[in-house]
Amino acid sequence: MAWKRAAIAGVGASRQGKLPGETAMSLATEAFRDALDDAGIAKDEVDGLLTMPGTTSPEGPKHYLALGEHLGIDPKVTGSLSMGGATAGVLIQQAALAIDAGMANVVACVFGDAAKTGGSKFDASAGGGDSWGIWGMFGNAANSAMGARRHMALYGTTSEQLGWVAVNGRRNAARNPLAVMREPITIEDHQASRPIVEPLHLLDCCLITDGGVCVIVTSPERARDAKHPPVSIWGMGQGHTLQNMGTPDWWYLPHQQDCISRAYRMAGVGPRDIDVAQLYDNFTIAVLFWLEHAGFVPRGESGPFVEGGTRIALDGELPLNTAGGNLSESYMQGWLHVVEGVRQVRGEAGDRQVAGAERCLVTGRGMTLNTASCLVLGPDR
Amino acid sequence: MAWKRAAIAGVGASRQGKLPGETAMSLATEAFRDALDDAGIAKDEVDGLLTMPGTTSPEGPKHYLALGEHLGIDPKVTGSLSMGGATAGVLIQQAALAIDAGMANVVACVFGDAAKTGGSKFDASAGGGDSWGIWGMFGNAANSAMGARRHMALYGTTSEQLGWVAVNGRRNAARNPLAVMREPITIEDHQASRPIVEPLHLLDCCLITDGGVCVIVTSPERARDAKHPPVSIWGMGQGHTLQNMGTPDWWYLPHQQDCISRAYRMAGVGPRDIDVAQLYDNFTIAVLFWLEHAGFVPRGESGPFVEGGTRIALDGELPLNTAGGNLSESYMQGWLHVVEGVRQVRGEAGDRQVAGAERCLVTGRGMTLNTASCLVLGPDR
Repeated sequence: MAWKRAAIAGVGASRQGKLPGETAMSLATEAFRDALDDAGIAKDEVDGLLTMPGTTSPEGPKHYLALGEHLGIDPKVTGSLSMGGATAGVLIQQAALAIDAGMANVVACVFGDAAKTGGSKFDASAGGGDSWGIWGMFGNAANSAMGARRHMALYGTTSEQLGWVAVNGRRNAARNPLAVMREPITIEDHQASRPIVEPLHLLDCCLITDGGVCVIVTSPERARDAKHPPVSIWGMGQGHTLQNMGTPDWWYLPHQQDCISRAYRMAGVGPRDIDVAQLYDNFTIAVLFWLEHAGFVPRGESGPFVEGGTRIALDGELPLNTAGGNLSESYMQGWLHVVEGVRQVRGEAGDRQVAGAERCLVTGRGMTLNTASCLVLGPDR
Repeated sequence: MAWKRAAIAGVGASRQGKLPGETAMSLATEAFRDALDDAGIAKDEVDGLLTMPGTTSPEGPKHYLALGEHLGIDPKVTGSLSMGGATAGVLIQQAALAIDAGMANVVACVFGDAAKTGGSKFDASAGGGDSWGIWGMFGNAANSAMGARRHMALYGTTSEQLGWVAVNGRRNAARNPLAVMREPITIEDHQASRPIVEPLHLLDCCLITDGGVCVIVTSPERARDAKHPPVSIWGMGQGHTLQNMGTPDWWYLPHQQDCISRAYRMAGVGPRDIDVAQLYDNFTIAVLFWLEHAGFVPRGESGPFVEGGTRIALDGELPLNTAGGNLSESYMQGWLHVVEGVRQVRGEAGDRQVAGAERCLVTGRGMTLNTASCLVLGPDR
């Protein structure tokens, strides 16, 4: 029995890429308009506003206030949250719960950032507070590199296997007009790209981009009257390992597994029921972890699963990151993963539509924040 | 039909006042322990953690991460929110909804701050962005003073009437062992206290204090097995006027009225059903506004209602701020208003217990953030 007590009625995105002159606010606004248009819902009907400040947003926790004033909304439910790549999922969950309780009826979940041109202040600490720097470990790439190295040591995972995640993302991005990086790449390109933090190469790493994204959450009833078919929220999950640093398994991010198990339970599904997955890919290794955490493959077997790229291709057994993801579409910190999940379930993903896609798993994480969130999306029946 | 799908099973507070050597974190921890003890629930059962960073918390939006690590919790639901005095209400609402959806079972909502000794960075901007300073208007007192002046001009409200709110709070604080300011005051003391921003005197203004507060939210079923009788959440509301600055009525904060109407509707009650009220009192004038917004008195009649202090006393028709509030108990930004609401509904408020108190309205607001939240608390039947 899937939860299905709220639905996504509209998704929107601004232009993506390097957009001089734009701001986090202007891009969020562009996305908001696009999502309302997609939903066929008038602005006056929006009675909830949940926002994620961009890394270049000056407002911090007051972001909802500035954005609400700018957009002209007096919401019944509002707030701003900063949990990195887990934020989109958590805010959509908050929206869904508020709708189910009758506290709001149409909630806009909004993000915008001018990270590429606006002087992003990405956090350079590597998790668990700021103390890791004394070990010479700085930045998100270092954290992911350590996890990748451990996975390689234990399971024989190779850099080429990581490369297939990047190649797959780029291959899908080529079919996505919104994607920033559409020029095909090969495994050789991946291997030849410069090292960032070994074993990660440049092409293992996500982009930094300007852009905005908006997701309109509403009641199942209201969504049925929207312009497109409703995409129902079947299940939702969060997982957080706030005290994980002391456990031998910390590098494996076991809270991500908990996160997905919870959403599966709520949705009444398991990995075999998922037709397509949008897995948060700040680095290629993240996708390998998610594949195992979601139960698509047993622990340690994600490397061979992605190798060659056929199983994860659009016509493969588990199409992955069908719009290109953070690696090739745009680095919207997971927000565009939701958008693509919605388009796939609607059957409106154009050249990159997965045939028969009904149920989609969307994951997000704030890696150095030890947070994860996910959604199981499906049809409204 | 009241909502009643989640309940408060425990409330806790640290020591309050001037506490050199303590930090936002240590005080939050002290409150967390106290709340678990009050609930008779073990820490291992806590599977949700929602936090409000103090003005002296260094972690900002990562506050949940630091606190979770410190307390030793891997929550299923987490996050940090900064919406000033509306935060307690909003976080308790998020907790209640997550519990109702089965996403968590025992959620600790936690706040701590060392604002008195730790060099608080209270925001000095006066609402609607930072642009009001060019009009010579700085700080929260200025904002409230303008509202007070307008109320006086329109309705004949007097400074002495404001004073009765302060006297009432102090009178109740004298019966509250936790309260910081327990020395009785008179209307003459109020009138003689120095002006801060006219027409507001020193005794119209809240304290600044160190302290921590924690509220344990859980399912109705689990709460019934806790140490004290469960206090059920009958209704919840939020109201936000993010674009209010252009309306002639902005000074009256009409979103606060919306906030309470929504909670009444969810609770299936009206003002006549409320036995006791904890109304957010960063300044005395705030209480007058709330009295009108909540429908306890018609617009403009709150001044005469509080005059003389008998109607709002512990044995009056509407006992108000029975623990002393922000003005005399401690400035925990509304968190202690929830604690006192719970104690009153439980019938465990000792010397300050309101006879027959069953249903309590608790309000909170981030005044310069244009946000408000409220709860209707009642018995579990």
